[in-house]
Amino acid sequence: MPYVNIKVTKEHGGLTKEQKADLIEGVTGLLEEKLQKNPASTVVIIEEIDMDNYGLGAEQISEKRKRQS
Amino acid sequence: MPYVNIKVTKEHGGLTKEQKADLIEGVTGLLEEKLQKNPASTVVIIEEIDMDNYGLGAEQISEKRKRQS
Amino acid sequence: MPYVNIKVTKEHGGLTKEQKADLIEGVTGLLEEKLQKNPASTVVIIEEIDMDNYGLGAEQISEKRKRQS
Amino acid sequence: MPYVNIKVTKEHGGLTKEQKADLIEGVTGLLEEKLQKNPASTVVIIEEIDMDNYGLGAEQISEKRKRQS
Amino acid sequence: MPYVNIKVTKEHGGLTKEQKADLIEGVTGLLEEKLQKNPASTVVIIEEIDMDNYGLGAEQISEKRKRQS
Amino acid sequence: MPYVNIKVTKEHGGLTKEQKADLIEGVTGLLEEKLQKNPASTVVIIEEIDMDNYGLGAEQISEKRKRQS
Repeated sequence: MPYVNIKVTKEHGGLTKEQKADLIEGVTGLLEEKLQKNPASTVVIIEEIDMDNYGLGAEQISEKRKRQS
Repeated sequence: MPYVNIKVTKEHGGLTKEQKADLIEGVTGLLEEKLQKNPASTVVIIEEIDMDNYGLGAEQISEKRKRQS
Repeated sequence: MPYVNIKVTKEHGGLTKEQKADLIEGVTGLLEEKLQKNPASTVVIIEEIDMDNYGLGAEQISEKRKRQS
Repeated sequence: MPYVNIKVTKEHGGLTKEQKADLIEGVTGLLEEKLQKNPASTVVIIEEIDMDNYGLGAEQISEKRKRQS
Repeated sequence: MPYVNIKVTKEHGGLTKEQKADLIEGVTGLLEEKLQKNPASTVVIIEEIDMDNYGLGAEQISEKRKRQS
Repeated sequence: MPYVNIKVTKEHGGLTKEQKADLIEGVTGLLEEKLQKNPASTVVIIEEIDMDNYGLGAEQISEKRKRQS
């Protein structure tokens, strides 16, 4: 019955429905395989965060992307 | 001074303002009644999650709802 | 299928098992009553936080309690 | 490598990009100065919460603001 | 640079160091494989929750385990 | 009335009470200075995470520290 919260930056219009489904299935499977956790009650919540609101290394991801491009 | 975070799926256009007010009042009251926590500093944050982003049983809630309808 | 996270300060040795059960039952019931959420998949996680680690009004709760006693 | 999550109410159209950058820089700097934490791997995530979804003192912030104005 | 928080009940003395390493590696790999997220800045935090503090279906996991044994 | 959650690894026996007080005061002050948020209702919660439970770059911080020493 684990609870998993995943926060990723919203880039290129955001994740597709298929990418989200894949992620939910993958994480739930991992918890079953590695820790024998019951998939039926495993909760996975994905949150997409605006790149201005996500900081790494004291800098917004939106600014980091600009420098990288 | 408790902190409460409630994450629910966003369904049928989302919660109404009244439902949110009810929930905030109910949870704050419960913490006062059961644990004698001061309501004046109790914080309740409600987050509505897109059904594609909420997984249960390795499946998106959006897909679960389709099968149920 | 809501997810609820409750953070309270750990005081007087912490919550009893009965207080925790009461809180879990109360919050789950509230979400069923107010939002028609299915109690079977409602997750409630209670976290007890050391009073030195919980700040309100720029002050640790442990210090606030000293001033109040 | 700390992780910091900041939740604030969304007021007056929300924080500007500059305010978010300031906050990320300030918190990251604080963790370096006070705890010698490496800024390169410090993560700061800012979430803006609708005033109807944020409760304090058993009341929505949206209602509190009305009374205050 | 995703952030992942995993909350599991603490059972049978808790996860071993190897189980935690496996989980961190597995989740980080999944985010790289499915979403092309950079593993170098992916943060995974595992929290083990006392079975009295984790509720599912309005019941503590500690009680659920008793009924199941 | 912001809510701030800070998760840091527990190293060298953990943060002192003074370090925690400093952090709470600093973050609360920053939110007042940068965003004009009321310090009286600002909540700051610090969580110290075991180094085995904190992963960065697909590796536990406990292992990273070993390699660095």
